[in-house]
This record gives sequence, C-alpha cells and structure tokens, in this order.
Amino acid sequence: MALLSNVAQRSWSNVKMRFNKTHVEKKLFTPGPLGCSRTVKEAMLRDLGSRDSEFLKTVKLIREKLIEIAEVSPEEFCAILLQGCGTYSVEAVIQTGNPREGGRVLILINGVYGKRMKKICDSIGIESETLEFSEDSAVDLGKVKEVLQRGEQYTMVAVVHCETSSGQYQPNAAYFVDAMSSFGAVPIKIKDGQIDYLVSSANKCLQGVPGFSFVFARKSELLKCKGNARSLSLDLVDQFENLDKTGQFRFTPPTHSMLAFLQALHEYQEEGGISGRSRRYKQNCSILHRGMEELGFNRFLSDDCSGYIITAYYYPDHYNFKFEEFYQKLSELGQIIYPGKLTNANCFRIGNIGDLYPTDMKHLLKCIAKVLDGMGVPVPVPVPAPGS
Amino acid sequence: MALLSNVAQRSWSNVKMRFNKTHVEKKLFTPGPLGCSRTVKEAMLRDLGSRDSEFLKTVKLIREKLIEIAEVSPEEFCAILLQGCGTYSVEAVIQTGNPREGGRVLILINGVYGKRMKKICDSIGIESETLEFSEDSAVDLGKVKEVLQRGEQYTMVAVVHCETSSGQYQPNAAYFVDAMSSFGAVPIKIKDGQIDYLVSSANKCLQGVPGFSFVFARKSELLKCKGNARSLSLDLVDQFENLDKTGQFRFTPPTHSMLAFLQALHEYQEEGGISGRSRRYKQNCSILHRGMEELGFNRFLSDDCSGYIITAYYYPDHYNFKFEEFYQKLSELGQIIYPGKLTNANCFRIGNIGDLYPTDMKHLLKCIAKVLDGMGVPVPVPVPAPGS
Ligand SMILES: Cc1ncc(COP(=O)(O)O)c(C=O)c1O
Ligand SMILES: Cc1ncc(COP(=O)(O)O)c(C=O)c1O
Repeated sequence: MALLSNVAQRSWSNVKMRFNKTHVEKKLFTPGPLGCSRTVKEAMLRDLGSRDSEFLKTVKLIREKLIEIAEVSPEEFCAILLQGCGTYSVEAVIQTGNPREGGRVLILINGVYGKRMKKICDSIGIESETLEFSEDSAVDLGKVKEVLQRGEQYTMVAVVHCETSSGQYQPNAAYFVDAMSSFGAVPIKIKDGQIDYLVSSANKCLQGVPGFSFVFARKSELLKCKGNARSLSLDLVDQFENLDKTGQFRFTPPTHSMLAFLQALHEYQEEGGISGRSRRYKQNCSILHRGMEELGFNRFLSDDCSGYIITAYYYPDHYNFKFEEFYQKLSELGQIIYPGKLTNANCFRIGNIGDLYPTDMKHLLKCIAKVLDGMGVPVPVPVPAPGS
Repeated sequence: MALLSNVAQRSWSNVKMRFNKTHVEKKLFTPGPLGCSRTVKEAMLRDLGSRDSEFLKTVKLIREKLIEIAEVSPEEFCAILLQGCGTYSVEAVIQTGNPREGGRVLILINGVYGKRMKKICDSIGIESETLEFSEDSAVDLGKVKEVLQRGEQYTMVAVVHCETSSGQYQPNAAYFVDAMSSFGAVPIKIKDGQIDYLVSSANKCLQGVPGFSFVFARKSELLKCKGNARSLSLDLVDQFENLDKTGQFRFTPPTHSMLAFLQALHEYQEEGGISGRSRRYKQNCSILHRGMEELGFNRFLSDDCSGYIITAYYYPDHYNFKFEEFYQKLSELGQIIYPGKLTNANCFRIGNIGDLYPTDMKHLLKCIAKVLDGMGVPVPVPVPAPGS
C-alpha cells in the first residue's frame, strides 16, 4: 500500500504538471472523438439539474432540431437520445427492434462496423445472417435483392451507411441504417428510403462532444417492440416513452454534453445546415486528396465509392516508413491521424470532419511532408505494387 | 415542413437569447447530476484523441487512482470504466456476473434503486428474488442471513449502499453493492466486506461531470464470467480485457468527462480524500438538519439510519404549501432541490453533495425561509401528524 501510494504520488505530480495549461492543442484528423469548436466546449461550463426547466427545454429543442435535420415528420418519426456512445444505440436498435424469440437479422457487411453488428447479435442471442462484401467495394444491391427474394424471413436488415473503417458508403439502404459518421453531412433519404431506424452520435458530423448518441425511429415500428429488449438500459421503447411523457431521461443524462450539443446544432445551422457542412467537408477532403496525391500516396478506395468523411491511404512502400513513428512525429506537431481498421490492407486514415477547415488540411499536408523528410522517406512516396 | 421550420426558427431565437451568458448560475442540492467546481468544468475545454498518449495516460491514472481510493489491491481488484450513466454499470454487473442459464439474484430492497435492480433482472430474463424492507429502515441483516441459510442457491446477492431515494444506508453488505451515491464519501470495506462488485459514477461524491460510471470487480470472480452478458455494450469482461490489454476503450469514450474526472480526482486528493470530503458533507448536512429543524421540517428518516448524503423531508401540513410552487420559487432564487422518490410518503429531498459548502447550505436555508414566507406558509411549518 505504501509503495502504491508512492507511485500514485509520483503520477499525481505529473498530473499537476499537465494542468499548467501549457499543453499543445492538437488537431484531430480522426473519425471520432473529433475536434469541436471552442464555443461548443465553452457551453459545458455550467451545471444544470436534470429536472430544471432550462435543461428540459434543451432536451426538447435538441430532439425537435434533430427531426428537422433528418427531414422527417414528427408524426412519423421520433428522435431518441441515449446516454453513452454510438455502439449503445446500434445495440439498442437491435435489442429493441427484434422479438425475443424468432428474431433473424440480415447484416450487410463491408467493414468493421458491420462486423460489430454481427457480434452484437451473437451476444444478445439473436440469429443473424451476413452478406459480406469486400472492404473496397460498395454493398452490391443486386446480391441483397437476390437474398431477400429467396423468401427467407428476416426481422431486420441492417447496414452501415458510411463504413468509417474505409470511408465507403452505400448510395441506398433500407430498414436499419447505422449512419454514425455521415448523418448531418451526407444526405440520406430516411423517409423515401423506407428506413425504420437510423443511428448517429453527438460527436460526429454534428460536432458535439461525446456523451450520447441518438436514434431516429419510425414510431409505428418502434411501438410494436415493447418488451423485446433483453436489457433495461438499452430498451429504446422505454427510453422513448419516458422522454416523451416526462421530457426527462430515465437515468442521469450527460447534461454538459447536451449543452454542448445544443450549441453545436446552433453552429450547424449558422454554417448552413447540411449544405454548408458538406461543402466544407468536401473542400477539406479535396484539399487532402490533392495534397496526398502530390506526395505520392495511394488511396484505398476508388473515386466512385469513397465519400468525403475519411480517407484510407496505403502505407508507402519504403523501408524507412514505419507507421508508429509517422503517427508519433505528426502527433508531436499537433496533428492526430488515425491507424487503419482494415482487415487485409496496410492503411492509415485521415478524417476531415469536425472542427477542421481548409487551412487545417493544408497545414496537415505540410506536416506530413516534413515528417516524411525527417524519416528519410522520399517524396513522392514509393507506392505499393497493385494487389499487394 | 414550412411550419415546422418556423417553429424551429422561433425556438432558435430563444436559444440565441439564452446564449448571451447572462443566465443565473444555479446551485444543485440534488442527488445528481450535481454541481462540480469551475476548474473541473474547465478541464473539458480541450479535445483529446482517444488513442492519444495523453488520453491513454489519463485513463490509466483514473483507473489507478480509483483502486487507491477504494483501498483494494490492484492484484485482486480492477476498476472498469464504462461509458454512460450509473444504471448501465449496475446492469453490466448483473448481465456479466450471472450465468446465461440458471442465474438467480437475491435483491435486498429498501428503495427505488433496489427496485430498479429487479427490473433489470426481469428485462434480461434472470430470475430474481427480493427481500423488501420499508423505506424508512435499514436492511435487516438477520432476515437476510435467515434467507441465505435456508439453503437456496443464489448466483448473486445485490444491495444498494445508500438508497438515494431516502438517504438510507446499510452499515454492511456483501457481493454486489451499488454504492452510486456514497463511494468516495462514506467508508466501505470492499476488501473485508467480501464484496465482489461495487459500482459508482463519475458525477457523484467524486464530483466529476456525468458521462461514465465505474465498477470495481474482484478479478477472480470477473474472469469466470466470460460470455455471460447478453449484451456487447454492457459486457464487463470484454470492456475490462480491452482496457487492460490496449489501455483504450472498445468504443468512443467521453474524453471531456474523463478530463474533468481527472481534475476532480485531483481536487478530491487536495481536499484530503475521503476524510476531507466526508467532513465537508457532514458539515453541510448538519447545517441543513439544524436549519430545517428550526424551520419546523420533519425528516423522513430517524438519525440512526440516515446518512449525510441527502435528506428527505415531509411536506409541511399546510394548505398553502404546494411542492411545485415551492420548487419553482427556489429555482428562481437559483436553488435547485429535488422531488421525492418515495413510494408512500409526501417528501422532497435536499442533497448536500457536489460543489456545495457550508455557506451554500446557509444560503439555501435563507431562501427556503423567504419562499415559505412568500407562499404564506407559517414558520415553524406545521408538521404532519405521525403516521400520516
Ligand atoms: C459507422 C460507425 N458505426 C459505429 C460506430 C461506433 O460508435 P462509438 O464508437 O461511438 O460507439 C462508429 C464509430 O466511429 C462508426 O463510424
Ligand atoms: C443508489 C443509486 N443507484 C443507481 C442510480 C442510477 O444512476 P444513474 O442515474 O447515473 O443511472 C442512482 C442515481 O442517483 C443511485 O443513487
């Protein structure tokens, strides 16, 4: 115990040192947590009671505004906020949207987040079938139709809108859509697309801080699902009914994240909503693509199926390139990129969502050039042979 | 859609108005979310990447420090952080700590949070038996022993340490303890008490902001539980193994809440840990008790079983007293109290945990006197007849 305390004491001095506010503010070129504006963070400098009228108004406004951004009618759809991260909402939809007995989910997979849906089904004990597509291609709708027309019965069809692991997105998808990293920046026709559930999170394209995620649910579907969930925490019907009836959360809400999110929605509107935000993300993305091309990097996805949220790049084919070193040196320059999350390709990822602007993208490119130079990797970087 | 937008437009002007920073800062005399210091909130003015070395250090330090505060050995116990609110950790323990088939939980109930455990078991489909005690008395250990000696087999015994609904706490309890509103301020002998799981939350006595909760788990127990959870999100073994192996979370963590919590732990230590914090809470509580007594209010719990976290008071027995009006007028004076959560008593609650000091308690008492005066309720307030 004495030794433990000594160690802890030592670490606490470090903590003190780190709290002298001389830290470098780093830019996050990641798929999340991503950077948000100073004003969004400043909205968290208050404590609100969870039953306070101002907090209840905040929750109400957020829910209404989300419905408006989703361009659905509040009669047909509801917006349910759920404490925790995005995966919780994905699981809540699967927990709630399938019956306790006889549920069967068809999962269209072309990346890690689709695979996670499968894992969720396995944990709960819900039967699932998967249709796997390669990570560098879109979901093949022909194949999906073929499977659906075979006459097999599914209680849910689930798909990821923008596979954050590669940057890939489906032009069209139905039923349950995980739109975690695209909602608010990439148009999705919820109403026309026959989507029943759509999930996203506070800390993605709407640029709030992490703390909760949200689900758009078609009410007529949702209300059939009472008693389905094998979980109290992740029971969407229960969460919805409480929010609607009382305006309050069932359990302690992350009040600070909510205040930040209200400010984030405000800034979203000021930027011009989806058109303004997608314009900036596209700009960021094309600056990145052009600059990385000049540096010789090869993209993992071809133009026709890559979005403008995040881009996966192959490692350069040079013995001096070590990703860990590359990452670390960029981090020292205040630039945080992201490792790959692909099954069979040596890639890293650069996101361009969050509080990032063209100047940030240009600065990142300069830093990348500098770090490559320092590592002794020639520019343009040597590219891996096709198919390797 | 046009109308909808108009409405939203109007509400957004309200939002703008509210963002001019002239809002009143209210004091929270609630069981949570509760107030935290300015410096804890200021720690959230940064964005950190979830794989960034500084964030990984933050997580590591938090976990080590929690183990130290719990006074357990890191060989025997681990601290698992879980995104979301406290109930998620309660459910995670029940999901993970009982087998998929044949689980049977004995729940000792004397308030709403014990009842919630029962609801959690029902949702998951785990058999449970309850031993109910009245809300104004402690759990009767004799009765518990009697039940346990009957030879019935249970896979878990669960109890709430401090029933936040009344303020009641158990001097001794075993196996799974929900210590949500007491950990860090009321001593609990985890090691000697044969406790296997203990749960609390960032936004209780350790005075962080909401966003995650945590579980202390006896490793030898926990590691027997692989595959038990019918949930991926609330699978404690999976969360633990990932945190331990990679230092990272499985899913997006609430980075800002974690930064706030690290600062909160720092301030906890500066206050003198559990002894300093409990001293202040006890001071707050006795000022409250004395002042409310002078105003004529009656406490719901007798001295021998009430803690120093939160106090439930009977409504005064006067036709001019309406709780909603009382609450609202106090709120206008910047004082947020809490409605009751008791089954068969007309009570409201006043908490004294969080960023509250003796001066805050004294000010609250003055405000209460003022509001009673304005409502035309005489002081000392008339008390309800015993047993009513
Ligand atoms: C498409 C997609 N689905 C699910 C998730 C999981 O969200 P979270 O990490 O908040 O649990 C992510 C996270 O980036 C994602 O991009
Ligand atoms: C004893 C107890 N258990 C459980 C909870 C639930 O925690 P949360 O509201 O964070 O889900 C609370 C909340 O105050 C509590 O006091």
